[in-house]
Amino acid sequence: MSYVKKPMAIENKSFEIITEELGEKVKKFTEDELKIVKRLIHTTADFEYADIVEISEDAIESGKKAIEEGSRIYCDTNMIVNGLSKKTMEKWGVGAYCLVSDDEVVIEAKERGLTRSIVGMEKAIKDEKTKIFLIGNAPTALFTLMEAVEKGYRPDLVVGVPVGFVGAEDSKERLRELNIPYIVTRGRKGGSTVAVATFHGILYDMYDRKGFLGE
Amino acid sequence: MSYVKKPMAIENKSFEIITEELGEKVKKFTEDELKIVKRLIHTTADFEYADIVEISEDAIESGKKAIEEGSRIYCDTNMIVNGLSKKTMEKWGVGAYCLVSDDEVVIEAKERGLTRSIVGMEKAIKDEKTKIFLIGNAPTALFTLMEAVEKGYRPDLVVGVPVGFVGAEDSKERLRELNIPYIVTRGRKGGSTVAVATFHGILYDMYDRKGFLGE
Repeated sequence: MSYVKKPMAIENKSFEIITEELGEKVKKFTEDELKIVKRLIHTTADFEYADIVEISEDAIESGKKAIEEGSRIYCDTNMIVNGLSKKTMEKWGVGAYCLVSDDEVVIEAKERGLTRSIVGMEKAIKDEKTKIFLIGNAPTALFTLMEAVEKGYRPDLVVGVPVGFVGAEDSKERLRELNIPYIVTRGRKGGSTVAVATFHGILYDMYDRKGFLGE
Repeated sequence: MSYVKKPMAIENKSFEIITEELGEKVKKFTEDELKIVKRLIHTTADFEYADIVEISEDAIESGKKAIEEGSRIYCDTNMIVNGLSKKTMEKWGVGAYCLVSDDEVVIEAKERGLTRSIVGMEKAIKDEKTKIFLIGNAPTALFTLMEAVEKGYRPDLVVGVPVGFVGAEDSKERLRELNIPYIVTRGRKGGSTVAVATFHGILYDMYDRKGFLGE
Protein backbone atom coordinates (compact mmCIF):
# COMPACT_ATOMS: atom_id res chain seq x y z
CA MET A 1 0.00 0.00 0.00
CA SER A 2 1.17 3.51 -0.73
CA TYR A 3 0.52 6.26 1.79
CA VAL A 4 2.23 9.30 3.35
CA LYS A 5 4.45 8.05 6.16
CA LYS A 6 6.33 11.18 7.27
CA PRO A 7 4.74 12.87 10.30
CA MET A 8 5.55 16.53 9.48
CA ALA A 9 4.46 16.07 5.85
CA ILE A 10 1.07 14.80 7.04
CA GLU A 11 0.52 17.74 9.41
CA ASN A 12 1.58 20.38 6.88
CA LYS A 13 -0.60 18.92 4.13
CA SER A 14 -3.58 18.80 6.51
CA PHE A 15 -3.29 22.48 7.38
CA GLU A 16 -2.99 23.37 3.68
CA ILE A 17 -6.25 21.55 2.96
CA ILE A 18 -8.00 23.21 5.91
CA THR A 19 -6.87 26.69 4.83
CA GLU A 20 -8.03 26.06 1.27
CA GLU A 21 -11.46 24.78 2.31
CA LEU A 22 -12.00 27.57 4.82
CA GLY A 23 -11.79 29.96 1.86
CA GLU A 24 -13.18 33.42 2.58
CA LYS A 25 -13.94 32.51 6.18
CA VAL A 26 -10.30 33.07 7.17
CA LYS A 27 -11.03 36.80 6.93
CA LYS A 28 -13.36 36.60 9.94
CA PHE A 29 -10.41 35.91 12.25
CA THR A 30 -7.17 37.54 13.36
CA GLU A 31 -3.93 35.65 12.69
CA ASP A 32 -3.80 34.39 16.29
CA GLU A 33 -7.46 33.33 16.28
CA LEU A 34 -6.97 31.47 13.03
CA LYS A 35 -4.37 29.23 14.66
CA ILE A 36 -7.02 28.06 17.12
CA VAL A 37 -9.72 27.69 14.45
CA LYS A 38 -7.51 25.58 12.19
CA ARG A 39 -6.45 23.35 15.04
CA LEU A 40 -10.11 22.80 16.01
CA ILE A 41 -10.89 21.67 12.47
CA HIS A 42 -7.72 19.55 12.30
CA THR A 43 -8.86 17.69 15.43
CA THR A 44 -12.52 17.15 14.49
CA ALA A 45 -12.59 17.32 10.67
CA ASP A 46 -15.67 19.43 11.29
CA PHE A 47 -15.69 22.84 9.60
CA GLU A 48 -18.69 23.93 11.68
CA TYR A 49 -16.17 24.85 14.37
CA ALA A 50 -15.23 27.93 12.30
CA ASP A 51 -18.83 29.11 12.76
CA ILE A 52 -19.36 28.26 16.42
CA VAL A 53 -16.05 29.21 18.01
CA GLU A 54 -16.03 32.55 19.79
CA ILE A 55 -12.90 34.06 21.30
CA SER A 56 -13.20 37.03 23.64
CA GLU A 57 -10.99 39.96 22.72
CA ASP A 58 -8.55 39.49 25.58
CA ALA A 59 -8.54 35.66 25.71
CA ILE A 60 -5.42 34.82 23.71
CA GLU A 61 -3.28 37.54 25.26
CA SER A 62 -4.43 36.71 28.77
CA GLY A 63 -3.87 33.00 28.18
CA LYS A 64 -0.34 33.64 26.90
CA LYS A 65 0.46 35.78 29.94
CA ALA A 66 -0.75 33.01 32.28
CA ILE A 67 1.41 30.46 30.45
CA GLU A 68 4.44 32.75 30.73
CA GLU A 69 3.78 33.00 34.46
CA GLY A 70 3.75 29.19 34.78
CA SER A 71 0.06 28.86 35.63
CA ARG A 72 -1.40 25.53 36.62
CA ILE A 73 -4.20 24.37 34.32
CA TYR A 74 -7.34 22.73 35.67
CA CYS A 75 -9.02 20.31 33.24
CA ASP A 76 -12.46 18.81 33.81
CA THR A 77 -11.40 15.41 32.38
CA ASN A 78 -8.29 13.29 32.67
CA MET A 79 -8.44 12.85 28.89
CA ILE A 80 -7.68 16.55 28.47
CA VAL A 81 -4.72 16.34 30.86
CA ASN A 82 -3.49 13.32 28.91
CA GLY A 83 -3.91 14.99 25.51
CA LEU A 84 -1.95 18.15 26.37
CA SER A 85 1.66 18.38 25.23
CA LYS A 86 3.63 18.13 28.45
CA LYS A 87 6.91 18.60 26.62
CA THR A 88 5.74 21.97 25.29
CA MET A 89 4.15 23.14 28.56
CA GLU A 90 7.33 22.33 30.48
CA LYS A 91 9.13 25.14 28.63
CA TRP A 92 7.21 27.54 30.86
CA GLY A 93 6.85 25.31 33.90
CA VAL A 94 3.14 24.89 33.18
CA GLY A 95 1.38 21.79 34.55
CA ALA A 96 -2.14 20.42 34.11
CA TYR A 97 -4.34 18.41 36.47
CA CYS A 98 -7.84 17.04 36.95
CA LEU A 99 -9.56 16.11 40.22
CA VAL A 100 -12.62 14.09 39.14
CA SER A 101 -10.93 10.78 40.00
CA ASP A 102 -9.34 12.13 43.18
CA ASP A 103 -10.36 9.94 46.15
CA GLU A 104 -11.53 12.84 48.33
CA VAL A 105 -13.58 14.27 45.48
CA VAL A 106 -15.24 10.93 44.68
CA ILE A 107 -16.32 10.48 48.31
CA GLU A 108 -17.52 14.05 48.76
CA ALA A 109 -19.51 13.99 45.50
CA LYS A 110 -21.28 10.79 46.57
CA GLU A 111 -22.11 12.23 49.99
CA ARG A 112 -23.51 15.46 48.57
CA GLY A 113 -25.24 13.79 45.57
CA LEU A 114 -23.43 16.09 43.15
CA THR A 115 -21.26 15.46 40.11
CA ARG A 116 -17.56 14.88 40.74
CA SER A 117 -17.08 17.71 38.24
CA ILE A 118 -18.68 20.23 40.62
CA VAL A 119 -16.67 19.14 43.63
CA GLY A 120 -13.41 18.96 41.62
CA MET A 121 -13.94 22.47 40.31
CA GLU A 122 -14.64 23.84 43.80
CA LYS A 123 -11.22 22.58 44.88
CA ALA A 124 -9.40 23.86 41.77
CA ILE A 125 -10.76 27.38 42.30
CA LYS A 126 -9.15 27.41 45.75
CA ASP A 127 -5.71 26.66 44.26
CA GLU A 128 -3.92 30.00 43.84
CA LYS A 129 -1.65 28.89 41.00
CA THR A 130 -4.56 27.69 38.85
CA LYS A 131 -5.42 30.47 36.38
CA ILE A 132 -6.41 28.55 33.25
CA PHE A 133 -9.46 26.24 32.99
CA LEU A 134 -10.13 23.77 30.19
CA ILE A 135 -13.68 22.41 30.30
CA GLY A 136 -14.60 19.92 27.59
CA ASN A 137 -17.12 17.69 29.24
CA ALA A 138 -19.13 18.88 32.21
CA PRO A 139 -21.46 21.89 32.10
CA THR A 140 -21.68 21.50 35.88
CA ALA A 141 -17.95 22.24 36.15
CA LEU A 142 -18.40 25.39 34.07
CA PHE A 143 -21.46 26.51 36.08
CA THR A 144 -19.51 26.05 39.31
CA LEU A 145 -16.66 28.17 37.96
CA MET A 146 -19.09 30.88 36.82
CA GLU A 147 -20.73 31.03 40.24
CA ALA A 148 -17.29 31.83 41.66
CA VAL A 149 -16.73 34.49 38.98
CA GLU A 150 -20.00 36.14 39.98
CA LYS A 151 -18.61 36.35 43.51
CA GLY A 152 -15.46 38.10 42.26
CA TYR A 153 -13.11 35.27 41.21
CA ARG A 154 -10.94 36.15 38.18
CA PRO A 155 -9.41 33.34 36.05
CA ASP A 156 -6.94 34.28 33.28
CA LEU A 157 -8.51 32.04 30.64
CA VAL A 158 -11.59 29.82 30.49
CA VAL A 159 -11.83 27.42 27.55
CA GLY A 160 -15.52 26.53 27.86
CA VAL A 161 -16.23 23.80 25.33
CA PRO A 162 -18.39 21.19 27.13
CA VAL A 163 -20.16 18.86 24.71
CA GLY A 164 -23.67 17.58 25.18
CA PHE A 165 -27.40 17.79 25.35
CA VAL A 166 -28.16 18.82 28.92
CA GLY A 167 -26.74 22.15 30.07
CA ALA A 168 -23.80 22.41 27.66
CA GLU A 169 -25.30 25.07 25.41
CA ASP A 170 -26.78 27.05 28.32
CA SER A 171 -23.49 27.03 30.20
CA LYS A 172 -21.63 28.43 27.20
CA GLU A 173 -24.20 31.15 26.53
CA ARG A 174 -23.88 32.19 30.17
CA LEU A 175 -20.07 32.30 29.87
CA ARG A 176 -20.35 34.70 26.94
CA GLU A 177 -22.10 37.20 29.20
CA LEU A 178 -19.29 37.28 31.75
CA ASN A 179 -16.52 39.83 31.54
CA ILE A 180 -13.60 37.36 31.72
CA PRO A 181 -11.23 35.99 29.04
CA TYR A 182 -13.01 33.05 27.39
CA ILE A 183 -13.09 30.80 24.35
CA VAL A 184 -16.34 28.91 23.68
CA THR A 185 -17.86 26.69 21.01
CA ARG A 186 -21.50 27.78 20.83
CA GLY A 187 -24.22 25.14 20.81
CA ARG A 188 -23.85 21.48 21.72
CA LYS A 189 -20.49 20.65 20.20
CA GLY A 190 -17.16 20.44 22.01
CA GLY A 191 -15.35 17.78 24.00
CA SER A 192 -11.99 16.78 25.44
CA THR A 193 -10.15 16.75 22.11
CA VAL A 194 -11.70 20.15 21.32
CA ALA A 195 -10.45 21.58 24.63
CA VAL A 196 -6.94 20.27 23.94
CA ALA A 197 -6.93 21.65 20.37
CA THR A 198 -8.08 25.09 21.55
CA PHE A 199 -5.33 25.36 24.14
CA HIS A 200 -2.69 23.97 21.75
CA GLY A 201 -3.70 26.69 19.27
CA ILE A 202 -2.31 29.20 21.76
CA LEU A 203 0.53 27.11 23.21
CA TYR A 204 2.08 25.89 19.94
CA ASP A 205 2.07 29.41 18.57
CA MET A 206 4.11 30.58 21.59
CA TYR A 207 6.42 27.61 21.10
CA ASP A 208 6.98 28.40 17.40
CA ARG A 209 7.69 32.06 18.14
CA LYS A 210 10.27 31.13 20.76
CA GLY A 211 12.16 29.18 18.12
CA PHE A 212 12.12 26.02 20.25
CA LEU A 213 11.36 23.94 17.16
CA GLY A 214 14.97 23.98 16.01
CA GLU A 215 16.09 22.11 19.11
CA MET B 1 -27.99 29.51 38.85
CA SER B 2 -30.29 26.59 38.32
CA TYR B 3 -29.04 23.51 36.49
CA VAL B 4 -29.20 19.71 36.59
CA LYS B 5 -26.62 18.50 39.11
CA LYS B 6 -27.27 14.75 39.34
CA PRO B 7 -24.95 12.70 37.11
CA MET B 8 -27.34 9.84 36.20
CA ALA B 9 -30.19 12.28 35.51
CA ILE B 10 -27.94 14.14 33.04
CA GLU B 11 -26.92 10.98 31.18
CA ASN B 12 -30.47 9.60 30.96
CA LYS B 13 -31.93 12.88 29.72
CA SER B 14 -29.18 13.12 27.09
CA PHE B 15 -29.97 9.69 25.67
CA GLU B 16 -33.69 10.54 25.58
CA ILE B 17 -32.97 13.64 23.50
CA ILE B 18 -30.67 11.71 21.16
CA THR B 19 -33.28 8.98 20.60
CA GLU B 20 -35.96 11.56 19.89
CA GLU B 21 -33.86 13.51 17.41
CA LEU B 22 -32.66 10.38 15.63
CA GLY B 23 -36.31 9.74 14.79
CA GLU B 24 -36.82 7.25 11.95
CA LYS B 25 -33.07 6.64 11.66
CA VAL B 26 -33.13 4.28 14.63
CA LYS B 27 -34.73 1.73 12.29
CA LYS B 28 -31.51 1.48 10.27
CA PHE B 29 -29.76 -0.22 13.19
CA THR B 30 -30.04 -3.34 15.34
CA GLU B 31 -30.49 -2.86 19.08
CA ASP B 32 -26.80 -3.54 19.71
CA GLU B 33 -25.67 -1.22 16.93
CA LEU B 34 -27.90 1.54 18.24
CA LYS B 35 -26.02 1.51 21.55
CA ILE B 36 -22.85 2.40 19.68
CA VAL B 37 -24.56 4.99 17.48
CA LYS B 38 -26.13 6.79 20.44
CA ARG B 39 -22.87 6.84 22.34
CA LEU B 40 -21.08 8.33 19.32
CA ILE B 41 -23.63 11.14 19.18
CA HIS B 42 -23.52 11.60 22.96
CA THR B 43 -19.75 12.13 22.75
CA THR B 44 -19.67 14.47 19.74
CA ALA B 45 -23.14 16.10 19.66
CA ASP B 46 -22.85 15.41 15.94
CA PHE B 47 -25.75 13.48 14.41
CA GLU B 48 -23.75 12.92 11.22
CA TYR B 49 -22.22 9.93 13.01
CA ALA B 50 -25.51 8.04 12.47
CA ASP B 51 -24.89 8.37 8.73
CA ILE B 52 -21.17 7.61 8.59
CA VAL B 53 -20.79 4.78 11.09
CA GLU B 54 -20.57 1.32 9.56
CA ILE B 55 -20.45 -1.83 11.65
CA SER B 56 -19.52 -5.14 10.01
CA GLU B 57 -21.98 -7.93 10.68
CA ASP B 58 -19.69 -9.85 13.04
CA ALA B 59 -18.01 -6.89 14.75
CA ILE B 60 -20.05 -6.58 17.96
CA GLU B 61 -20.20 -10.32 18.63
CA SER B 62 -16.51 -10.78 17.92
CA GLY B 63 -15.62 -7.81 20.10
CA LYS B 64 -17.71 -9.17 22.98
CA LYS B 65 -16.02 -12.55 22.68
CA ALA B 66 -12.57 -10.94 22.82
CA ILE B 67 -13.58 -8.96 25.92
CA GLU B 68 -14.83 -12.14 27.58
CA GLU B 69 -11.49 -13.76 26.83
CA GLY B 70 -9.64 -10.87 28.53
CA SER B 71 -8.03 -9.49 25.37
CA ARG B 72 -5.50 -6.70 25.54
CA ILE B 73 -6.55 -3.60 23.60
CA TYR B 74 -4.07 -1.64 21.53
CA CYS B 75 -4.91 2.06 21.15
CA ASP B 76 -3.13 4.41 18.77
CA THR B 77 -3.23 7.33 21.25
CA ASN B 78 -2.69 7.61 24.97
CA MET B 79 -5.85 9.73 25.11
CA ILE B 80 -7.89 6.67 24.12
CA VAL B 81 -6.25 4.54 26.82
CA ASN B 82 -6.98 7.31 29.31
CA GLY B 83 -10.61 7.71 28.24
CA LEU B 84 -11.52 4.01 28.55
CA SER B 85 -13.33 2.87 31.67
CA LYS B 86 -10.71 0.82 33.49
CA LYS B 87 -13.19 -0.07 36.23
CA THR B 88 -15.52 -1.68 33.69
CA MET B 89 -12.79 -3.43 31.70
CA GLU B 90 -11.35 -4.95 34.87
CA LYS B 91 -14.50 -7.08 35.23
CA TRP B 92 -13.13 -9.23 32.41
CA GLY B 93 -9.41 -8.66 33.06
CA VAL B 94 -9.18 -6.49 29.95
CA GLY B 95 -6.37 -3.93 29.74
CA ALA B 96 -5.51 -1.21 27.24
CA TYR B 97 -2.17 0.22 26.15
CA CYS B 98 -0.49 2.50 23.63
CA LEU B 99 3.13 2.48 22.47
CA VAL B 100 3.59 5.80 20.65
CA SER B 101 5.38 7.36 23.64
CA ASP B 102 7.36 4.21 24.38
CA ASP B 103 11.10 5.01 24.42
CA GLU B 104 12.08 2.22 22.03
CA VAL B 105 9.33 3.18 19.62
CA VAL B 106 10.33 6.87 19.64
CA ILE B 107 13.96 6.02 18.83
CA GLU B 108 13.13 3.48 16.15
CA ALA B 109 10.62 5.81 14.45
CA LYS B 110 13.22 8.57 14.29
CA GLU B 111 15.84 6.23 12.84
CA ARG B 112 13.53 4.88 10.17
CA GLY B 113 11.87 8.26 9.40
CA LEU B 114 8.41 6.79 10.03
CA THR B 115 5.54 7.81 12.29
CA ARG B 116 5.63 6.46 15.85
CA SER B 117 2.15 5.15 15.06
CA ILE B 118 3.54 2.74 12.46
CA VAL B 119 6.29 1.43 14.69
CA GLY B 120 3.97 1.14 17.71
CA MET B 121 1.44 -0.83 15.68
CA GLU B 122 4.12 -3.21 14.39
CA LYS B 123 4.96 -4.10 17.99
CA ALA B 124 1.31 -4.45 19.07
CA ILE B 125 0.60 -6.93 16.28
CA LYS B 126 3.37 -9.15 17.64
CA ASP B 127 1.67 -9.29 21.07
CA GLU B 128 -0.40 -12.47 21.17
CA LYS B 129 -2.94 -11.25 23.75
CA THR B 130 -3.80 -8.15 21.72
CA LYS B 131 -6.96 -8.88 19.74
CA ILE B 132 -8.79 -5.52 19.77
CA PHE B 133 -7.49 -2.35 18.09
CA LEU B 134 -8.84 1.17 18.65
CA ILE B 135 -7.50 3.64 16.10
CA GLY B 136 -8.73 7.22 16.42
CA ASN B 137 -5.85 9.26 15.17
CA ALA B 138 -3.30 7.79 12.80
CA PRO B 139 -4.18 6.42 9.37
CA THR B 140 -0.61 5.10 9.27
CA ALA B 141 -1.40 2.86 12.27
CA LEU B 142 -4.45 1.50 10.47
CA PHE B 143 -2.54 0.95 7.20
CA THR B 144 0.17 -0.95 9.10
CA LEU B 145 -2.45 -3.18 10.72
CA MET B 146 -4.12 -3.82 7.36
CA GLU B 147 -0.81 -4.81 5.77
CA ALA B 148 -0.53 -7.49 8.45
CA VAL B 149 -4.11 -8.61 7.78
CA GLU B 150 -3.26 -9.04 4.10
CA LYS B 151 -0.47 -11.37 5.20
CA GLY B 152 -2.90 -13.47 7.24
CA TYR B 153 -3.14 -11.72 10.64
CA ARG B 154 -6.63 -11.94 12.23
CA PRO B 155 -7.69 -9.37 14.87
CA ASP B 156 -11.01 -9.87 16.70
CA LEU B 157 -12.14 -6.25 16.35
CA VAL B 158 -10.78 -3.17 14.62
CA VAL B 159 -12.36 0.15 15.52
CA GLY B 160 -11.02 2.23 12.64
CA VAL B 161 -12.01 5.83 13.26
CA PRO B 162 -8.93 7.96 12.49
CA VAL B 163 -9.79 11.63 12.00
CA GLY B 164 -8.17 13.86 9.44
CA PHE B 165 -7.39 15.14 6.01
CA VAL B 166 -4.48 13.02 4.81
CA GLY B 167 -5.08 9.29 4.57
CA ALA B 168 -7.92 8.97 7.10
CA GLU B 169 -10.72 8.49 4.59
CA ASP B 170 -8.64 6.20 2.34
CA SER B 171 -7.59 4.03 5.26
CA LYS B 172 -11.20 3.51 6.33
CA GLU B 173 -12.41 2.71 2.83
CA ARG B 174 -9.65 0.10 2.59
CA LEU B 175 -10.69 -1.40 5.94
CA ARG B 176 -14.25 -1.85 4.64
CA GLU B 177 -12.91 -4.14 1.92
CA LEU B 178 -11.22 -6.51 4.36
CA ASN B 179 -12.97 -9.57 5.68
CA ILE B 180 -12.37 -8.88 9.40
CA PRO B 181 -14.66 -7.55 12.17
CA TYR B 182 -14.57 -3.74 11.94
CA ILE B 183 -16.36 -0.56 12.92
CA VAL B 184 -15.56 2.58 10.89
CA THR B 185 -16.73 6.17 10.57
CA ARG B 186 -16.63 6.86 6.84
CA GLY B 187 -15.05 10.08 5.60
CA ARG B 188 -12.81 12.42 7.55
CA LYS B 189 -14.47 12.38 10.96
CA GLY B 190 -13.42 10.37 13.99
CA GLY B 191 -10.90 10.86 16.80
CA SER B 192 -9.84 9.61 20.21
CA THR B 193 -13.16 10.39 21.92
CA VAL B 194 -14.97 8.68 19.03
CA ALA B 195 -12.83 5.54 19.43
CA VAL B 196 -13.60 5.46 23.16
CA ALA B 197 -17.34 5.98 22.62
CA THR B 198 -17.49 3.19 20.02
CA PHE B 199 -15.83 0.68 22.30
CA HIS B 200 -17.88 1.79 25.32
CA GLY B 201 -21.01 1.18 23.23
CA ILE B 202 -20.10 -2.52 23.32
CA LEU B 203 -18.49 -2.69 26.76
CA TYR B 204 -21.20 -0.87 28.74
CA ASP B 205 -23.87 -3.05 27.16
CA MET B 206 -22.05 -6.16 28.41
CA TYR B 207 -21.71 -4.55 31.82
CA ASP B 208 -25.44 -3.72 32.01
CA ARG B 209 -26.42 -7.25 30.99
CA LYS B 210 -24.18 -8.74 33.66
CA GLY B 211 -26.10 -6.78 36.27
CA PHE B 212 -22.89 -5.25 37.62
CA LEU B 213 -24.62 -1.88 37.92
CA GLY B 214 -26.36 -2.85 41.13
CA GLU B 215 -23.04 -3.27 42.92
